[in-house]
Amino acid sequence: MLPLPMMTDSLKEYRTGGRQVFDGRLLKVWQDQVRLPNGAQAVREYVRHPGAAMIVPLLDVGAAADDDGCRLIVERQYRYPLDAVVLEFPAGKLDPGESTLFCAQRELREETGFSAARWARAGVLHPLVAYSTECIDIWFAQGLSAGGQQLDEAEFLEVTQITARQLFEACRNGQITDAKTLVGAFWLQALLRGQWQPDWQVV
Amino acid sequence: MLPLPMMTDSLKEYRTGGRQVFDGRLLKVWQDQVRLPNGAQAVREYVRHPGAAMIVPLLDVGAAADDDGCRLIVERQYRYPLDAVVLEFPAGKLDPGESTLFCAQRELREETGFSAARWARAGVLHPLVAYSTECIDIWFAQGLSAGGQQLDEAEFLEVTQITARQLFEACRNGQITDAKTLVGAFWLQALLRGQWQPDWQVV
Repeated sequence: MLPLPMMTDSLKEYRTGGRQVFDGRLLKVWQDQVRLPNGAQAVREYVRHPGAAMIVPLLDVGAAADDDGCRLIVERQYRYPLDAVVLEFPAGKLDPGESTLFCAQRELREETGFSAARWARAGVLHPLVAYSTECIDIWFAQGLSAGGQQLDEAEFLEVTQITARQLFEACRNGQITDAKTLVGAFWLQALLRGQWQPDWQVV
Repeated sequence: MLPLPMMTDSLKEYRTGGRQVFDGRLLKVWQDQVRLPNGAQAVREYVRHPGAAMIVPLLDVGAAADDDGCRLIVERQYRYPLDAVVLEFPAGKLDPGESTLFCAQRELREETGFSAARWARAGVLHPLVAYSTECIDIWFAQGLSAGGQQLDEAEFLEVTQITARQLFEACRNGQITDAKTLVGAFWLQALLRGQWQPDWQVV
């Protein structure tokens, strides 16, 4: 463990007021007033998000799996804010009351058609600590069986397969720039290097 | 290279209209109308961001540097949207007209007091492809010399040092959850494993 306490009075800010400034279909934006550690006032603007789950779907990985033997499911999806097609791991927003595991199972099935027999939680990531409350639970899925995609009417994406080696190379040569997918690659390396022992749950 | 073209007509969306729906001190939020690949209309809400730079500051790293021999500068900063103190690499937003390298130099100096003799660009990351245009250029800095912090009046953060081994462990045990910092760890592993040969520029 790092010798680093994770909350310090000399850094913390206290909310003194605030209101919702935009209530969109997707985005809920808030503007709060806070008291800074030195007593001064400041404004904080941020997106309130219900949370999400990302899936790293492993097609083949055994005890002796290496970067070439391990194959994964990824998606190609047009992302309007970037005006680009982005290579990503499947992910989606939590429905109200939904657990992140249930969300991961649902999103994997809806977006790729695959169901998984075994699931293991790697950790959590915060994509944008400066202006979003979003947190993404990272789930690895194994024992995949194919089915049919169940995309929303307004959802367009392509499902494809790559090896772990291709994934790592794409992360280093600039073909993969999506933060959550890069973080998934970090966890996949930890798995393949034996630095992370997943606690697989049969679901 | 992956056999994956990065733009496909079957996925692309075309803007048909839109307007700014929130003009905050920090956040600029837009709501656009788009035509989907099937001809239907949809709404896209997103934050327009000027871009940013992150710095991975290496205190000691030689040809034989390992995970224990490599020490880095990191920050602890309270992040209001998460109500938590977050361990991060230094980073900041581009000023108008500023290059990402100049921004990286400025932010490193202002936030940590350090200046660096050599800089190498690793790549770029997109923290939130679903609802932000933000892209963060990733710069590694070497040959550090200490100076004085130049924090804004309303900026509070603590600067500390950790080894690469401590950083990687903190990424795996849940102490580091900030996406950009996790991506920095991915690149640091690539550097220390010899999978990435930085093109160091003397600045």
